[in-house]
Amino acid sequence: MDEIKYKPIGVIHSPFKEPKGTPIQPASGKGIGGTVEVFPEYAKGLKDVDGFSHIILIYHFHLSRGVSLEAKPYMDNEVRGIFAMRGPSRPNPIGVSVVRLVKIEGRILHIQDIDIVDGTPLLDIKPYVPEFDMREVVKIGWLEKRVHKLSTSKDDGRFTRRKAGE
Amino acid sequence: MDEIKYKPIGVIHSPFKEPKGTPIQPASGKGIGGTVEVFPEYAKGLKDVDGFSHIILIYHFHLSRGVSLEAKPYMDNEVRGIFAMRGPSRPNPIGVSVVRLVKIEGRILHIQDIDIVDGTPLLDIKPYVPEFDMREVVKIGWLEKRVHKLSTSKDDGRFTRRKAGE
Repeated sequence: MDEIKYKPIGVIHSPFKEPKGTPIQPASGKGIGGTVEVFPEYAKGLKDVDGFSHIILIYHFHLSRGVSLEAKPYMDNEVRGIFAMRGPSRPNPIGVSVVRLVKIEGRILHIQDIDIVDGTPLLDIKPYVPEFDMREVVKIGWLEKRVHKLSTSKDDGRFTRRKAGE
Repeated sequence: MDEIKYKPIGVIHSPFKEPKGTPIQPASGKGIGGTVEVFPEYAKGLKDVDGFSHIILIYHFHLSRGVSLEAKPYMDNEVRGIFAMRGPSRPNPIGVSVVRLVKIEGRILHIQDIDIVDGTPLLDIKPYVPEFDMREVVKIGWLEKRVHKLSTSKDDGRFTRRKAGE
């Protein structure tokens, strides 16, 4: 399998008009509201989603500029492997965020705790289920001494495309 | 943005040679070991990953047969919206699983608690971090009365392509 092709099923709307200043995780975007617009042809798939308090959004980091297999994460000054961080300059720039689902109106989902740039293409929505998604974690590597910075950390633009095609 | 193109960065190996009989979530694949092979050109990105006890695998459900916006989930007898379940017949057949990282040897990751079919194309690896990925969940919708079935639920083949091109 050489190439995998996906199509956006919707678009994410948020108060963050550019990566710079956007919270780097839902935990640092706490209380900030946004919406997810699901395109009409996929609206039927939203049945029963309103029963869940949290959902997983899977999206395409459309503003990511190219791939860096090693980079300095937002919360660190050392170069780390891209698979040991959550930043966007990944070989496949897929983002995953757990957000709170407030309500659904038609094909518009109102969400909270958002860390996603306005206009981001949505690839999938999954229900967040503790039995599936929560683990007894033992080690969080380099983040151990860094994660306390989370609530004050914002995107500084380091992973963002500066001009078209860059 | 009409089409998004990704390339596999590796392949997942597991004891499950076909979807039928595969655990439907890592929780029902507890203790079962597998490996993730990252292709040589992406190996540099694995730096520092060994510091994490759990990782998120993002992969392509390559055996999914087409899209069903509504379907009967494995653990239920009622038809639910596809975005309210985790099954593979999604518009973009992307799977997300949290697995335990046992050790890394070169570009081979040894993992446990696996619910993924052998040969599945890998799209991304992310570190699993409680501060990013764990939430105080209030509601889990239709799964509320079903999730106790998880440890005994296996894939019965309902979402699987029966012959090539189907």
